Amino acid sequence: MDVESPQEIADLLKDHVLHPAEAADLLKDASAEQVAEVVKVLDEQQTADLVEHLDLAIQRDLVNYIPRGHMAKVIERMAHDARVDLVKELPEEVADSLLPLIARAERMDIARLASYEEGTAGSVMTTEYAVVSVDATVEAAIRELRRQAPGEQTGSEIYVIDADRKLVGSVTLRDLLLTKPEQQIRNIMKTDIVTVNATDDQEKLGEIFSKYEISTVPVVDDAGRLVGRITAADVIDVVEEEADEDIYRLGAAGQPIDYLRASILKIARQRLTWLLILVGTGLITSSLLQHYQAELTTAIALAFFLPLLSGSGGNAGSQTTAVVIRGLSTGEIQLSDVWRVVLKELAVGLMVGTVLGVFAAARALLVPGGFQNLRLGLTVGLAMTGTVTLAKALGALLPIFFQKIHLDPALMSAPFISSIVDILTIITYFTLARLIYLR
Amino acid sequence: MDVESPQEIADLLKDHVLHPAEAADLLKDASAEQVAEVVKVLDEQQTADLVEHLDLAIQRDLVNYIPRGHMAKVIERMAHDARVDLVKELPEEVADSLLPLIARAERMDIARLASYEEGTAGSVMTTEYAVVSVDATVEAAIRELRRQAPGEQTGSEIYVIDADRKLVGSVTLRDLLLTKPEQQIRNIMKTDIVTVNATDDQEKLGEIFSKYEISTVPVVDDAGRLVGRITAADVIDVVEEEADEDIYRLGAAGQPIDYLRASILKIARQRLTWLLILVGTGLITSSLLQHYQAELTTAIALAFFLPLLSGSGGNAGSQTTAVVIRGLSTGEIQLSDVWRVVLKELAVGLMVGTVLGVFAAARALLVPGGFQNLRLGLTVGLAMTGTVTLAKALGALLPIFFQKIHLDPALMSAPFISSIVDILTIITYFTLARLIYLR
Repeated sequence: MDVESPQEIADLLKDHVLHPAEAADLLKDASAEQVAEVVKVLDEQQTADLVEHLDLAIQRDLVNYIPRGHMAKVIERMAHDARVDLVKELPEEVADSLLPLIARAERMDIARLASYEEGTAGSVMTTEYAVVSVDATVEAAIRELRRQAPGEQTGSEIYVIDADRKLVGSVTLRDLLLTKPEQQIRNIMKTDIVTVNATDDQEKLGEIFSKYEISTVPVVDDAGRLVGRITAADVIDVVEEEADEDIYRLGAAGQPIDYLRASILKIARQRLTWLLILVGTGLITSSLLQHYQAELTTAIALAFFLPLLSGSGGNAGSQTTAVVIRGLSTGEIQLSDVWRVVLKELAVGLMVGTVLGVFAAARALLVPGGFQNLRLGLTVGLAMTGTVTLAKALGALLPIFFQKIHLDPALMSAPFISSIVDILTIITYFTLARLIYLR
Repeated sequence: MDVESPQEIADLLKDHVLHPAEAADLLKDASAEQVAEVVKVLDEQQTADLVEHLDLAIQRDLVNYIPRGHMAKVIERMAHDARVDLVKELPEEVADSLLPLIARAERMDIARLASYEEGTAGSVMTTEYAVVSVDATVEAAIRELRRQAPGEQTGSEIYVIDADRKLVGSVTLRDLLLTKPEQQIRNIMKTDIVTVNATDDQEKLGEIFSKYEISTVPVVDDAGRLVGRITAADVIDVVEEEADEDIYRLGAAGQPIDYLRASILKIARQRLTWLLILVGTGLITSSLLQHYQAELTTAIALAFFLPLLSGSGGNAGSQTTAVVIRGLSTGEIQLSDVWRVVLKELAVGLMVGTVLGVFAAARALLVPGGFQNLRLGLTVGLAMTGTVTLAKALGALLPIFFQKIHLDPALMSAPFISSIVDILTIITYFTLARLIYLR
């Protein structure tokens, strides 16, 4: 699209030609001041629609360019989950001057939603939903819904609650539309509904939505009272975030950040943390080799195969770690599968390692050295088989063990497994060399 | 849940106590024969609901235990996207004997959906949706909807089409419920709707759903005619699949498979393919080191730092590859960002590499050897800085280059980058050693 100036974007938004999400895209690289230019000519609802699609950092800065009283009205009109994210992001003094200007009911809603811990279902849900009483008739329910004037954001499912606000069922607008007005809600509602608890881990959401093929799920508290609703669109964001985290951690790249915007210094600091840990284990390999100096001096050919062995071990481990960490994260692999997985990887490692061992041994036989070279070949071949098997077993065992002791399994990233395998490779290799090659 | 026998599961399903998705979970490890026991006492609709939640392999085998005529009726009742997946999975002779028994309209629907290529929006969509004519009144539209008797699977959005079946707008049941019967659909419909083309890449779907915060999107053909609908729940599956693929490829573990069920032989074969390619490049390192045999013999201390250098280079490269491949896949990084990304990684690499170089040099100074060791320290330090910088630049450049020439960027997996970096590390290291340490 060929829209550039704030004025043009504002005009298109006012005429509903441009979707707020597209306007936000066009303003992706704009400063808060430029966005403020656009917002100036919009009404409160249009501003709210645009603001909730902007990056959080821009939303936060934008607040400084909008009069507090006006901003309060905008926040009242924002999607309930979006505005909580914004308020959480505001500096304390800004929040303190802004919140009192927001209508009491909305303010309490923000406080309630903000109270859920990050990573729980409660932190993802919104409080926009339509409810009717289980004691109502269809006619009364429709009247009540007209009163609640549910917006687009409440979805097509209407939750049915009892006198204690406990969730007892659901009806759809379609049910109401197709049923006689004097029917009781109690008699037409669906009662076998899927719910999640507000304190549930958000990681479970993807599995629930795809298992039950639902587009929205009600959220209840420990007493079974309705407290919110989660939409599939929100879950898509959660699923992508979780995948981002898996991938970054597997690559030992730290927490996902806004890469293109992040400063070089910030990226470098994040990467360095992990690399230093890995260099720490890498230094052990130097000391080990220094320890095996006598063997290396006697038979320099041993050195030729060091990168091949440690590389292959690392690669074999990376494969397993990727599969196991992703499996744990999507729930495909359970903690109870531990021995099944480890034994499977041991078997795969032994098979794969034997094939690779033959290749490595064949290459070692090409080193000039006559009969003695058969021993070198055997050493290199067995070291390869041992390393690959070990790498696969560790690549499966360590993430599962970490999960078991309630640490993030992805901390056992592929590079970390490779480093540990490096150390074990050198010990195995030189032990075999002493036994076979150097006697 | 403590349900074990097929009979119990069937009873609970018949009484609507058990959700079909939960029954499918309980039957996860059951054989097709055992599932057939359950299905025997269910009616066609209940069977359809259960079958579409089962693993495809079980669905396929189950077909052999159900009389063809009955199975045809079950397929007619299955969700339209689920039954296409099943039919595609059937052996040709089974499909040939089954398809003619399915009602003509349903059979044509299956054929139409099956014609979309894997990986396109068309292959993910379903053909269950409700439509009304743009020329209708609200009253006529409601009458038409009652006639179409839309099930739960049609969603709350009703698509508005013109005489050519072109999608011109949408209304919600809520709109119909809250509007006067004599109003024209044309006047109340929403016209700025988000659509996707049936031939669009499914990778785009996650971005579209989360950008516009929608729960369903209509699918059109090149002429703008309505051909289907995609729900957010389907997109969650797509997003997870794409993330699985990214993670497996990053780990050089091949295509995602049903890990726990797959045979050891199948897993080993898949892993071996990649490991052999990587061993191929690994063998180059052996030859290189053999080529540098003279240097190694003169100064065995050089060998001590080989695993440290190649490991650090590999890790630095893995970090960048993880970030860049994920960024390309989610659309956060565009092809046009190539130089921005490569320069950023070069800068990060230089910073991080310098710090790691200092550590590596310090360790090298600990090797006994007097003044000569300053030269070893300088060699190891500079090699570290060079390796890490190079690894980061390549880790960014190669995946973007692959994307540019329309190959899967994830083929430049972390292990593959590590292997290439290994080779470059050895050349850099020994060139520096000749220039600084060994003169």
